[in-house]
Amino acid sequence: MAAPSMEDLVSLCKRRGFIYPSSALYGGLKGFFDFGPLGVELKNNLKKSWWNAMIYERDDIVGLDSATIMHGDVFTYSGHLKTFSDPLVDCKVCRSRWRADHLKNGQCPGCGSHDLTDPRPFNLMMKTTLGPIDDPSAVAYMRPETAQGIFLNFKHVYDSMNPKLPFGIAQIGKSYRNEITPRHFIFRVREFEQMELEYFVRPGEDDKTHAYWVDQRRQWWVEQGLDPLKLHSFSQPKEELSHYSKATVDLLYEFPHGAEELEGIANRTDFDLGSHTKDQESLKIDAKVEKNLHAVQRLAIKEATDQEWIVPYVIEPSAGVERGVLAILHEAYTEETLSNGEKRLVLKLKPHLAPIKVAVIPLLKNNPVLVNCAQALVSKLKRLHLGWVVYESTSSIGKSYRRHDEIGTPFCLTVDFDTISQSDNLEQHRTVTIRYRDTCAQERIALEDVPQKIALLLQNFGDAAYD
Amino acid sequence: MAAPSMEDLVSLCKRRGFIYPSSALYGGLKGFFDFGPLGVELKNNLKKSWWNAMIYERDDIVGLDSATIMHGDVFTYSGHLKTFSDPLVDCKVCRSRWRADHLKNGQCPGCGSHDLTDPRPFNLMMKTTLGPIDDPSAVAYMRPETAQGIFLNFKHVYDSMNPKLPFGIAQIGKSYRNEITPRHFIFRVREFEQMELEYFVRPGEDDKTHAYWVDQRRQWWVEQGLDPLKLHSFSQPKEELSHYSKATVDLLYEFPHGAEELEGIANRTDFDLGSHTKDQESLKIDAKVEKNLHAVQRLAIKEATDQEWIVPYVIEPSAGVERGVLAILHEAYTEETLSNGEKRLVLKLKPHLAPIKVAVIPLLKNNPVLVNCAQALVSKLKRLHLGWVVYESTSSIGKSYRRHDEIGTPFCLTVDFDTISQSDNLEQHRTVTIRYRDTCAQERIALEDVPQKIALLLQNFGDAAYD
Repeated sequence: MAAPSMEDLVSLCKRRGFIYPSSALYGGLKGFFDFGPLGVELKNNLKKSWWNAMIYERDDIVGLDSATIMHGDVFTYSGHLKTFSDPLVDCKVCRSRWRADHLKNGQCPGCGSHDLTDPRPFNLMMKTTLGPIDDPSAVAYMRPETAQGIFLNFKHVYDSMNPKLPFGIAQIGKSYRNEITPRHFIFRVREFEQMELEYFVRPGEDDKTHAYWVDQRRQWWVEQGLDPLKLHSFSQPKEELSHYSKATVDLLYEFPHGAEELEGIANRTDFDLGSHTKDQESLKIDAKVEKNLHAVQRLAIKEATDQEWIVPYVIEPSAGVERGVLAILHEAYTEETLSNGEKRLVLKLKPHLAPIKVAVIPLLKNNPVLVNCAQALVSKLKRLHLGWVVYESTSSIGKSYRRHDEIGTPFCLTVDFDTISQSDNLEQHRTVTIRYRDTCAQERIALEDVPQKIALLLQNFGDAAYD
Repeated sequence: MAAPSMEDLVSLCKRRGFIYPSSALYGGLKGFFDFGPLGVELKNNLKKSWWNAMIYERDDIVGLDSATIMHGDVFTYSGHLKTFSDPLVDCKVCRSRWRADHLKNGQCPGCGSHDLTDPRPFNLMMKTTLGPIDDPSAVAYMRPETAQGIFLNFKHVYDSMNPKLPFGIAQIGKSYRNEITPRHFIFRVREFEQMELEYFVRPGEDDKTHAYWVDQRRQWWVEQGLDPLKLHSFSQPKEELSHYSKATVDLLYEFPHGAEELEGIANRTDFDLGSHTKDQESLKIDAKVEKNLHAVQRLAIKEATDQEWIVPYVIEPSAGVERGVLAILHEAYTEETLSNGEKRLVLKLKPHLAPIKVAVIPLLKNNPVLVNCAQALVSKLKRLHLGWVVYESTSSIGKSYRRHDEIGTPFCLTVDFDTISQSDNLEQHRTVTIRYRDTCAQERIALEDVPQKIALLLQNFGDAAYD
């Protein structure tokens, strides 16, 4: 089948409640999106899967959640105020503004003119002011990456947790970038979430750890359902590296608009811990920051066997949550023709990512015995804490199956007259139909076995059954 | 025992890795805090518990996650630009600024002067600008409440999910308020998270639904471990109500600094859905918004049995995540003298909120057989997906117990020579010690029974065992 277009995904997302344009009642806000009832579950499940892999399944990484607004000086020292910019050009004819490296043929996409200014750097950070007094010290920035919050807390975490090198600090949270031209649905947006790990190692062990994390992260994305053949590693050429990076490998995914970055794994060396370290000497030289005596703290550590203080190197796997959601939706979106000639749209999500885990459907929505039985089964399943389990009685069985195919519900359970049968025929006595999303296969199982069966299917081997 | 002071909590939080001051390397940022490795788990567990109670355990509420930055016009219509302000006074002597209703005796807390200006309204919203062109249309606001994102998506959600009244839309996310004087640790901060439900009902059913939610929410907080005797309901007097509210009941908790709002349950009537509805008639009258033809959308619904379109009323239980964390820490913090005369600090958190669920400790950290056995047990427990399970070998058994008491780990498992014994004495053969945090009680259980025992203890009846 042909891969879905971006329009296919946008349409499904809006219709079924995954993703809506933001502030839409007021004409929308470019580069902002809202996650609907289905989308918030998919996004949360993806974040949970990352957190599990980083914190709970390992022994060497702890979590963090730092503020999204940070002190202006942070970005002076991190280098972002000086260098975190994209090249901006003005069209001299229609006065529109564009990102220079996105223009083809040096022509204004607004009016077609070639009369453009030279590119100049446009800083991507969003600014705000804090407190009731409007002076320069009131300026703060919304972080353009969660990473700086980790570096600033490096010593705090080290002192509280006493880890030994190598160790990591992981964070999921919002970042903000004032993109000149947000585009490609949720791919390039102005408000987004990152899943970032800063993994600290001894200098000299950085190259091999970098390779290790490229491999780990690729494998994790495959476990989330991405086709390994659509995932490519790309080593950034030296001249394109960020100001902090010694080497960066991007994991590219074949999005509808082309192969673009899903995650970047950078070797940031000791650039950041070094930048936020200000010793007395540098303070004397740098008059501007002389007042910042509180910054006289070496972000260095010395373990029992060390002779000297070490400023660790850091490997940073940094993934975009929205890009992850887009890749997963793109991969899962499947149009099929069934053996009976009917067409269907099905979202083949891994069960651990599916927004709704199970839908329970009564054969007739106006039969009180069927309805009660179905609702009792829902209550029973809810007590297993498997995630979102729904009672579905808005339409016919066929339509309910189609809806749950489209939103990726891996299992539907149908309660019919056999389920409530009082007959002595044990073959059909008190059974429900379980329907599997991807194959449309149906089987009858005993009502009393349902909770255990569903719990098993949703555990790891449940996922394996979908591989 | 005496209730802990705020200083006790601040100190524990910093020392053990719950909460750190934000941007601390650069002198800090007033009203901003970072959650450390323990704090992020506690906070996530609290949010998870709320999401479970709202979405997964019920049938009538769905989730949402809308952008934190919104179009300026949203707040014109919501009334926030005009009315979401606190009274600000200037000291004419030292030029400091203060929130008028927080001043005692009308005296400047900075210099003691009585020479203050009359109070004037100071809007609490944080502003930023979007896009590369700096004109008035580029102004956007960071939302002061998550609620507006729900109201704007009301129709989107209704169309995707086809719910029937009454139904709710729930959201957890950041909000930003430029507080004049942030204070009381994480109680009054400038960046915080809200857990908000907007529950839509037919007009006329609002009063009884309001009472229902006050009751539900109070009960939920008690289930999170708060002492019912320290939770008080307070009906806001008419003159103190927010601009949107017909009636608000605050749940007050006895924080270290006094009984203050933990959650507010407001009857917002049809104020918001009404405000965001602009029909042709009102557009003609209101010249300022004439261009906003896209806002001509009635946020009204008409169910099959209805004769007319209905603008639902909405009941809003709105809780602060940080305030919840503070209340829970305050409640759990316990200083005790044990029967042997030793003193200990223990954090008596409900197990479902505890950052670390289980710590596995080898008796000797340099005995490879004990270490291997303990690590194998950790791996086994991790496979149960119970949350954070740690291998603890940084210090002696006694010190490890003290550390895990202080951070609220409900169960410690100690691996000793009996655990690895090859003897035929089945009494002691391959058993581990399980130690219970609150009682310090220890019992020996068979190594092979550990996973099942821990899983059971951590389920609902595990919590009940702690009541």
